[in-house]
Amino acid sequence: MHNDDYSQLQKIGKEIHNIEAALRVLQWDQETHMACNSAASRAAQLETLASVYHRMRTSKRFSNQLAKLIDIKSGKILANVDDEKKSALKLWRRDYVHAKKLPTSFVKANEKLCSEATLVWADARKENSFIKFAPYLEKIFEFSRKKADYLGYNEHPYDALLDEYEPNCKKSDIEILFKKLRLEVQTLLKRIGQAPQVNDSFLKQAFPKEPIMDLSYELLDDMGYDRTMGRLDFSSHPFSTSFHPTDSRITTRWHETFFKSNIGAILHEGGHALYEMGLPIQHYGTPLCEAVSMGIHESQSRFWEILIGESLPFWKMFYPRLKKAASSQLDGVDLDAFYKGYNRVAPTLIRVDADEVTYSMHIILRFEMESALIDGSLKIRDVPEAWNAKMQEYLGITPTTFAEGCLQDVHWSCGLIGYFPTYTLGNLYAAQFFEVFQKDNPDWKERIVSGDLKFIKHWLNQNIHCHGRRFSSKELVEKVTKNPPNYTPYIQYLTKKYEDIY
Amino acid sequence: MHNDDYSQLQKIGKEIHNIEAALRVLQWDQETHMACNSAASRAAQLETLASVYHRMRTSKRFSNQLAKLIDIKSGKILANVDDEKKSALKLWRRDYVHAKKLPTSFVKANEKLCSEATLVWADARKENSFIKFAPYLEKIFEFSRKKADYLGYNEHPYDALLDEYEPNCKKSDIEILFKKLRLEVQTLLKRIGQAPQVNDSFLKQAFPKEPIMDLSYELLDDMGYDRTMGRLDFSSHPFSTSFHPTDSRITTRWHETFFKSNIGAILHEGGHALYEMGLPIQHYGTPLCEAVSMGIHESQSRFWEILIGESLPFWKMFYPRLKKAASSQLDGVDLDAFYKGYNRVAPTLIRVDADEVTYSMHIILRFEMESALIDGSLKIRDVPEAWNAKMQEYLGITPTTFAEGCLQDVHWSCGLIGYFPTYTLGNLYAAQFFEVFQKDNPDWKERIVSGDLKFIKHWLNQNIHCHGRRFSSKELVEKVTKNPPNYTPYIQYLTKKYEDIY
Repeated sequence: MHNDDYSQLQKIGKEIHNIEAALRVLQWDQETHMACNSAASRAAQLETLASVYHRMRTSKRFSNQLAKLIDIKSGKILANVDDEKKSALKLWRRDYVHAKKLPTSFVKANEKLCSEATLVWADARKENSFIKFAPYLEKIFEFSRKKADYLGYNEHPYDALLDEYEPNCKKSDIEILFKKLRLEVQTLLKRIGQAPQVNDSFLKQAFPKEPIMDLSYELLDDMGYDRTMGRLDFSSHPFSTSFHPTDSRITTRWHETFFKSNIGAILHEGGHALYEMGLPIQHYGTPLCEAVSMGIHESQSRFWEILIGESLPFWKMFYPRLKKAASSQLDGVDLDAFYKGYNRVAPTLIRVDADEVTYSMHIILRFEMESALIDGSLKIRDVPEAWNAKMQEYLGITPTTFAEGCLQDVHWSCGLIGYFPTYTLGNLYAAQFFEVFQKDNPDWKERIVSGDLKFIKHWLNQNIHCHGRRFSSKELVEKVTKNPPNYTPYIQYLTKKYEDIY
Repeated sequence: MHNDDYSQLQKIGKEIHNIEAALRVLQWDQETHMACNSAASRAAQLETLASVYHRMRTSKRFSNQLAKLIDIKSGKILANVDDEKKSALKLWRRDYVHAKKLPTSFVKANEKLCSEATLVWADARKENSFIKFAPYLEKIFEFSRKKADYLGYNEHPYDALLDEYEPNCKKSDIEILFKKLRLEVQTLLKRIGQAPQVNDSFLKQAFPKEPIMDLSYELLDDMGYDRTMGRLDFSSHPFSTSFHPTDSRITTRWHETFFKSNIGAILHEGGHALYEMGLPIQHYGTPLCEAVSMGIHESQSRFWEILIGESLPFWKMFYPRLKKAASSQLDGVDLDAFYKGYNRVAPTLIRVDADEVTYSMHIILRFEMESALIDGSLKIRDVPEAWNAKMQEYLGITPTTFAEGCLQDVHWSCGLIGYFPTYTLGNLYAAQFFEVFQKDNPDWKERIVSGDLKFIKHWLNQNIHCHGRRFSSKELVEKVTKNPPNYTPYIQYLTKKYEDIY
């Protein structure tokens, strides 16, 4: 009987997921194919769909069915079902209680603010005018504080926001972690800075688009990305989105003079997509067919982009193919020089252009600023100055424009406060997983050199993807690595790798 | 106060339209870009969205607001609003009463049946197996009869179905009209058959795709189709769809060896899109920003495809451009030979390949068959035989396969019973409009020859599109032409045109 009730709940869950998928299709279309003057009508469609979605998630129909299986107030499981289903019920309850705390009117107003703010941000960045964006940023943080109040927290309002993207993670945990990580990375950066520098100028030439794009498609096939269940399109910023495990799409952009990001985006977004495609489809409609957290999601993209895609075995295999696809850009650049140049470490003003070592510094800066903006210890008007001071302190460089500084990221304009730390968490998780992956596949280097990449997907499928959201990020990391989440494998990996390069 | 209530109703109407738009985006994506193995998940998403849409259209929230302005039972207008708004209220009531008659469970079951039937139909057509499709066709007509019963009718169940696509149109009207039309067309066909035939073999060669597609884009620009508010994509069958007057998209396909349909599809679908783009945007969310009927919609596509796009002035202008885009396919074919070949009249088995004269015969056949299937005077098992007999009687040819016969169209598998007559109504309306257009633009031929097409769009905008759905098709035809809908202008147009060609 409880299994029937569970099936009925899954049925309602499927409907909710279907509406979420529709939302994502409209967003995907907006970023890839929609004509430029259709934006206003699309914003209205998204607003309506978002409120239908919110209403469905918080409906009596859903909560009544849920309440047959779990006590919504106490969280006590009432149903006689297996452990997997018990986890699903707990997650369903968590999501319901969470969604219920946000009034529909707030969700709609927030949606509207963010879509306006994103347009203003784009203009402000173009015009290099912080003052233009400031009132919107003020409002965004006001709304985020309100959101934190609705959601509730014990220690710090930032906890409530962080919890949206990395459940059960607290500001105080991140603070301790980032403090130590910063010291480690700074030590490493100092050492690298004192060594002879490597040359990457050959990456900053114009490469021929068509053969490199053909190669990108081949690479996706090699990774095991099934193009009968997805697509690759162009958009102004690369992203991945999933409507269902059988329809998981990615986008890329073509960088005329920053070649690294062309291959990098394919591996990165491909990694996200493989995660979504690998979720346990029999649980579609339940939380078990969802991703654990943004941090775990990022661990999947960075696993492919960095740990595999910037490794020596990968380039042993891929460099000859790339040379063939390029015109004369790589003439006279041997594998060793290419590999070192591809992994060049140097401070950059722009986060998305950063190498893997300096990347964390960009995140730490943003985390410190947004958590201070949330509790009011930093004021909006002081953002540019604080940003520049931190850039100088952490990376020794100072932006000369807002576009290169505090206006560079879209996240804040979208209301994504609390999201940035998951980028670094993703790198740490990925390094922890990579340690186990290497132990489980002692011949991993040889296999990659021989052109085999599918065993990587297989390992990730078996160890990460197949669990869906059954375990929290902490539980999943412990299950896979036998260790709690920590930064040691990441620092060890970086230290060892860059000892060889510098 | 009533105006406030009206604004509130329009606000709810916008939400309903936004969900309908989302449905269409998902359908558009399915036909243009979606990967092949994503079909099952998409079908489920569409099913959920369709039932949300139906629930919104029949919700208490909507009907309570509507009831403040119009008595839903009697149709008596309660609001003190202008005539335009009064028309909107009547249409809103009509749609609500209509939608309310169909139980959500029926709508869902029908949706499901049709999506299954469409897949089976595609296979059956490929395998040339009527028996495979027959049980689905049986069910489709069963459901359609049920639908007619839900909707209600006075004379014939077909009336209820026809009314869905061409409001206020009855089977008995169509019967009388089609009987006369058939005789007229048969007379014309006989005369053409006795004249020396024209050659169109040059159209059946492979043309170079890229330059012709470039020309197609130019043609769309010339027509006034604004590509900042729409797109042209490829799909297996050309179609147009609109999410909003600012996002109206079309698709085409590339016919290797039936050139006429390449340019024809652009003009046809472009005509549909211009109608949607021309609807009065200030009324978005109300019935006033909707199309009148499928017949009026078809009049807009056929106006461009046939009355303009197969006319001599058009080809005087366009032929030199086409010749330039083609390789050597048209060498030695002068304008006169091209124009005559392009307008060649000859019976075909396939409706979508038919010339404008024989086209009506295909529609009359389908109308006679589907109305007999609905009232039971024709049985499903007798469909192939009846089809072939009628083809022989009306066009003097007989299909040798089901794919060339009763399995050629997708419509029945989609449950579109009562839709076919609107194709012919569209041709008749278009011819009536064309008469007035010529009077209003005595220099129309010269303008087209000079390369101007935008004045045509302007005339259609001013005379047809701007009224949205305010007038019924009958009222609109009378308003524009000062005559009731009738076939005389159509026959006069055909007779005159083909006297010159044959």
